[in-house]
Amino acid sequence: MKPIGILGGGQLARMLVLEAHRRGLPVAVLSPQASDPAATVTSNWIAGSPDREEDLIAFLKRCSAVTFESEFYLASLLEKASQATGTPVWPKPQTMDLLRDRLTQKRSFDKHKLPTSPWLAVETPADAKQAWEQVGKPAKGLVLKARTGGYDGYGTTIVKSESDLNEFIHDKLARAGSAGYIGEAFVPFKRELALLIARDQTGQIIEYPFVESLQKNSRCLWTLGPQNPASPKQRSQMSAMTKRLRAFLKSIDYVGVMGVEFFDLGQELLINEIAPRVHNSGHYTLSAMSFNQFAAHLFAVAGFALEKPKTPYSCFAMWNLLGSKAARPKLTPWQAGQSGVTKAGFTSEISWYGKHESRPGRKLGHVSVAGFAKGPAGKKACLELAKQIAAKSEKEIGY
Amino acid sequence: MKPIGILGGGQLARMLVLEAHRRGLPVAVLSPQASDPAATVTSNWIAGSPDREEDLIAFLKRCSAVTFESEFYLASLLEKASQATGTPVWPKPQTMDLLRDRLTQKRSFDKHKLPTSPWLAVETPADAKQAWEQVGKPAKGLVLKARTGGYDGYGTTIVKSESDLNEFIHDKLARAGSAGYIGEAFVPFKRELALLIARDQTGQIIEYPFVESLQKNSRCLWTLGPQNPASPKQRSQMSAMTKRLRAFLKSIDYVGVMGVEFFDLGQELLINEIAPRVHNSGHYTLSAMSFNQFAAHLFAVAGFALEKPKTPYSCFAMWNLLGSKAARPKLTPWQAGQSGVTKAGFTSEISWYGKHESRPGRKLGHVSVAGFAKGPAGKKACLELAKQIAAKSEKEIGY
Repeated sequence: MKPIGILGGGQLARMLVLEAHRRGLPVAVLSPQASDPAATVTSNWIAGSPDREEDLIAFLKRCSAVTFESEFYLASLLEKASQATGTPVWPKPQTMDLLRDRLTQKRSFDKHKLPTSPWLAVETPADAKQAWEQVGKPAKGLVLKARTGGYDGYGTTIVKSESDLNEFIHDKLARAGSAGYIGEAFVPFKRELALLIARDQTGQIIEYPFVESLQKNSRCLWTLGPQNPASPKQRSQMSAMTKRLRAFLKSIDYVGVMGVEFFDLGQELLINEIAPRVHNSGHYTLSAMSFNQFAAHLFAVAGFALEKPKTPYSCFAMWNLLGSKAARPKLTPWQAGQSGVTKAGFTSEISWYGKHESRPGRKLGHVSVAGFAKGPAGKKACLELAKQIAAKSEKEIGY
Repeated sequence: MKPIGILGGGQLARMLVLEAHRRGLPVAVLSPQASDPAATVTSNWIAGSPDREEDLIAFLKRCSAVTFESEFYLASLLEKASQATGTPVWPKPQTMDLLRDRLTQKRSFDKHKLPTSPWLAVETPADAKQAWEQVGKPAKGLVLKARTGGYDGYGTTIVKSESDLNEFIHDKLARAGSAGYIGEAFVPFKRELALLIARDQTGQIIEYPFVESLQKNSRCLWTLGPQNPASPKQRSQMSAMTKRLRAFLKSIDYVGVMGVEFFDLGQELLINEIAPRVHNSGHYTLSAMSFNQFAAHLFAVAGFALEKPKTPYSCFAMWNLLGSKAARPKLTPWQAGQSGVTKAGFTSEISWYGKHESRPGRKLGHVSVAGFAKGPAGKKACLELAKQIAAKSEKEIGY
């Protein structure tokens, strides 16, 4: 069988490749640099750019099916290469387009009755003013997000006043080019939640548990789960949400893992955004679930049926190891895995992504902790242990 | 940092490489074929033979430390290459020699008061007859094992009578060359046990639980654990054994994981054999323990401290997926991971080694099952589930 192709060489691609190896599934990677995190963990790395047509066509010819680690590749090129070679791409490139552009993403939410914060498209200064009046003012804040290319907080501006608005119009909107922004109401959420949902080629859908996630400087710092419904009301909110998401996946013939982020307002659950790929909020599945998100994505792309994920644990936490400075960390990062920070009833491990240079905010690895302690106290202890290990790791290695 | 080098490209090397990737540890592999199981899972594969001096020297120069997946490489060459390059090899090549030759292995057992079955060296027909009289007859059987190169039952002959003995002398001993055999008493064991023990460069030692193992056609078919002591007597047998093993590792300055196989006679625990490497009987640690044998071996070789392995499970089983015929199995082996054979309270997974051809007895992968059911019933259910998954896998894939 020809390999499953993965476009991109970062940590998401790396974790897909490692899972494929464990499962005996042949894979190939297309990425620019031989030192890319995913390029070093396979003999089947192909040098090239997922945004260059000739590279794509040559790569797709080698593969039985192709997927991607980022929705920011050029969907139209990918679609063209898929048609030229007959190699399917999952999720479909049209889906990438739908979800990589915040405007079409918001429109999809509305079309599929997926609840989201009120919003308006913002292309001109007049649009911006209208968005502030209609959406921002009532909510005491307007969040302006670049339609495309926004990621980990890049391209997001929060406007709290008319003077903020004018600054945005003069500094950013003028430079936005044709892509433009969306302006959405600032949402006073109690917490953020995330959920993985996956669909295979026969239409079967699986979901993972809801987890809480905390963003710091617009980057995921940690996730904590499972966040089971705390009340009948929340139960019905969550179950209505997953029902709608299932219908959404079905209607766009989605294949693969999708990461969904939510604002939990207490009284209401709103979708913040959706990513058509494996997701940082799901890294905990590697250690805590019987069937992790990378396996689920590969199975879906390869055309196999999804398994229902199970967990032996009552709590699990993931803490991102983020760079705090420009550095070449001491190349002994796995030492941190044995920092001596342990706790009875909990297991922990560190995954590293094979990156040799650190920069502020760069994702270098993550800590996973899982345990058997029940209830809020168990989850709190889980997260605290993950935090301690992450802190010790940063201190010892220096990144 | 220069990579940790691994000599050999089979499944043990592959699992070491995958664990290294997960931990961000740089590795390199020296093996003959680009299609070797370990060669396909890294960009740092070097073509060559671990038994050719120039290949070894070139490889050791690239590495910070080197280890091996097989004790059957030429220890003297390896020692020479280590001295020529200054790159340490762990476990030490002398240890390979000590343990790859059953004669020196048995002598080590005696020297270190490690209990083993009575034995004599067998080089000549007269030796064979003496071994039969002194060792074989009283035990109602003599097991003749080639001093070197024996593996998975190759090179082993069981002699139950004088006519068996004569057949052995004429058919096999005559062809043995200078290496010769050892003859050991046939041991009427109740079951076989196995244990992983590991030592790091600071001298710290960790042990994994005892597991039961079953051999079929001289190949490991399954392991099942943990085999905690069933009585105070067995507790003292086991603890005396691990104490002696610890002393043994210390006295030979052993570094890395060692796999130890035992005969459990009920009244007594005897060492069957020892392998100076990661071991098939320890594959369960990949899914069932917080710190698996591959991580332990890499940490020891890299010069880091060992962690104490923990398990969240009360039972765990491993079932080898062995070829039953010459075949090129359908290249969708991971499908078997979703055979639909599941059981509440148990998790299961299949690891495949990326081999594209099957032969009778060839190790193609393994099934891991772990669960929370307690006591003998839990272990029985665990093993039964592993067996069912293995059977379904073989049937569906055809190997």
